[in-house]
Amino acid sequence: MMNIAVAQSGGPTCAINASLVGVFRESLKEPSIDAIFGSVNGIEGIIGNHLVDLKSMILTNDDIELLKQTPSTVLGSCRYKLPDWREDEEVYKKIVKTLKQRNIGAFFYIGGNDSMDTVNKLSEYFSTIDLYVKVIGIPKTIDNDLCVTDHTPGFGSAAKYVACTMHEITRDSTVYSMPSVTVVEVMGRHAGWLTASSAVLHAMGETAPHLVYVPESEFSLENFLSDVRQEMSKHKAVIVAVSEGIEVPEGVQSGVVDNFGHKYLSGIGKYLEDIVRKEIGCKVRSIELNVMQRCSSHLASKTDIDEAESIGAAGVRCALSGETGKVMAFRRISDMPYTVVIETADAYEIANNEKHLPKEYINSAGNNIRDFALSYFLPLIQGELNPIMSQGIPKHFAIHESVLK
Amino acid sequence: MMNIAVAQSGGPTCAINASLVGVFRESLKEPSIDAIFGSVNGIEGIIGNHLVDLKSMILTNDDIELLKQTPSTVLGSCRYKLPDWREDEEVYKKIVKTLKQRNIGAFFYIGGNDSMDTVNKLSEYFSTIDLYVKVIGIPKTIDNDLCVTDHTPGFGSAAKYVACTMHEITRDSTVYSMPSVTVVEVMGRHAGWLTASSAVLHAMGETAPHLVYVPESEFSLENFLSDVRQEMSKHKAVIVAVSEGIEVPEGVQSGVVDNFGHKYLSGIGKYLEDIVRKEIGCKVRSIELNVMQRCSSHLASKTDIDEAESIGAAGVRCALSGETGKVMAFRRISDMPYTVVIETADAYEIANNEKHLPKEYINSAGNNIRDFALSYFLPLIQGELNPIMSQGIPKHFAIHESVLK
Repeated sequence: MMNIAVAQSGGPTCAINASLVGVFRESLKEPSIDAIFGSVNGIEGIIGNHLVDLKSMILTNDDIELLKQTPSTVLGSCRYKLPDWREDEEVYKKIVKTLKQRNIGAFFYIGGNDSMDTVNKLSEYFSTIDLYVKVIGIPKTIDNDLCVTDHTPGFGSAAKYVACTMHEITRDSTVYSMPSVTVVEVMGRHAGWLTASSAVLHAMGETAPHLVYVPESEFSLENFLSDVRQEMSKHKAVIVAVSEGIEVPEGVQSGVVDNFGHKYLSGIGKYLEDIVRKEIGCKVRSIELNVMQRCSSHLASKTDIDEAESIGAAGVRCALSGETGKVMAFRRISDMPYTVVIETADAYEIANNEKHLPKEYINSAGNNIRDFALSYFLPLIQGELNPIMSQGIPKHFAIHESVLK
Repeated sequence: MMNIAVAQSGGPTCAINASLVGVFRESLKEPSIDAIFGSVNGIEGIIGNHLVDLKSMILTNDDIELLKQTPSTVLGSCRYKLPDWREDEEVYKKIVKTLKQRNIGAFFYIGGNDSMDTVNKLSEYFSTIDLYVKVIGIPKTIDNDLCVTDHTPGFGSAAKYVACTMHEITRDSTVYSMPSVTVVEVMGRHAGWLTASSAVLHAMGETAPHLVYVPESEFSLENFLSDVRQEMSKHKAVIVAVSEGIEVPEGVQSGVVDNFGHKYLSGIGKYLEDIVRKEIGCKVRSIELNVMQRCSSHLASKTDIDEAESIGAAGVRCALSGETGKVMAFRRISDMPYTVVIETADAYEIANNEKHLPKEYINSAGNNIRDFALSYFLPLIQGELNPIMSQGIPKHFAIHESVLK
């Protein structure tokens, strides 16, 4: 008999708790697994021996259903970067101590590419000390920028939110008789996947978003203004989707850098709003979709949530088959009917790399998404959950604040 | 036989098209009503004789259902302020010309208190020239600041969005181990109804929002910082809801004024974020719910949408009974079971007045909403529509851009 531990890391998504459910449910089925520990605040919980017993917290099928519908990370998160063990072994020793003390035979880390770096380092380190703890990565990120996997859990729900909200903003923006420009800022530091997903409106016959700017395409203010002017000659209300991470000349990035060397970006929408006001002089506004694009589980994609659970469960089977240092990944067999299989990839292939929007998805002017690319996005946003309501709003599963302290 | 006209005005909501459906459906039933005209861009369409034949555009029950679920104003909107006819009769003559030419016997204006000013002026003017065109106001505004009526169509859906999103933001904000403050800016120039609606989370057992600031309560930066510090001693992640219209000392209002003398406000959330960063120095962010709070029809309150249709229909019956210069209003009979009746009020009672959040709804510290007040808000956010989906996102009803030009 062994115990297992699971942790969640990085930025919240709508699907990360569904992957936890996948790990939990699959482990329940397995006679060789005894306790299922949740590590509080990602790897920090393992380092600090702050684990909770999930079997005593997730008690019923209703709890499971509610947890699948709850956004963000029920076990908390972290942005902790493990040092190279060859330079600093201290924290690794703490991790090993917890794993041994708790008789943990497998550790599942649900996270983005920074978490996959942790999976890679831990599995390498464990092999050097002959510790037979399996380490498996379960991908998640709304940014969809993980290599190898066709897409990441969390992306489909975020894409559905972005597309649906862009649709509603389009209705909101077209009411007055005067010409106007609306700039919608979408998350995405270096990859334009989420911004590009707003183009699925074209599959519904909408002309909006009329312009789509992603980091994969070089951005020029001159071209932007000429693009906007051209669209204004065709449409009363011009809708622009822009990734937070496009490079603008004057550098609106705040310059604050996190532990992984990421810059915190903000304000590109506002910046472009100001440029349009100054140079074109029409009615203009900017809208930041902010954290709503990653936590609006009331509008989650059923495809995404179901897949997130499946890939969590597949992680458990992978560990039980004896593998370690692996990350679970989707391979798409076909767009229509939409078919994916779950495979494994080596964590080092995924860690610290970014998958960009393919150049061929972007039109030649670099200001919109080609129609053929929509078949990539559309299957990922299909289906809805039936949110469990209380007092008129969706209920959430929560572990009490005091337990997580 | 007579024709009727209907127009939509002011800021978009999720319920304004449902009121249009109410007027449309009720008029269809009435043998004395022939054409049902939609006036494009509010009263501007009557002034400019820009009307569309709604019977040729809303053809099926599916169209009607879709229109009810479509946010914003399908006929466009305006922010046009009628002059006093004693000073400037020109535009009134244009209006009369259109009404006579199109044989319009009743005009229904769906809008906020500025639109009720138009209803009042038109009905007064028509009586001075013995023109027997009935003018009826159908209330709408997410701000819920109309006098006389218990609440306004559009408010319930916006309140549901605000509460649901505040709930999801709460999950998103509590993931990291470090203390943090999240400031959520909610619409409301002078009235705190929508911001206060976020407190319905307390009825679900949530401690968030921990602080709620509305324009009806005097705001002091000193008290704000001390409130935040106190909540930080109790909660890792402090959630603050703030109305865009609270008065802050340095005046973050841009100072731009619209035709009705309203100042465009923005940036209070960002402003408080900066203050917290500077004075407390913790992790802090601000989130503006922006236009999403008024156009997220995918999360509309069924109670709100159904009531919006009913009050539109009641407007038609009111005109047919011979009344004019009236605004339809809700009177609440009881909170539980929730019961309202539709009555009429004089437009001059409603025009140019604002209904504020009752002082007794606000706690003595002026930084949250009292529990007893939640029974006002809760019935208004109950129930969901079943959105008609296409390509994974809710479909909308749209009249082609070229028709509305």
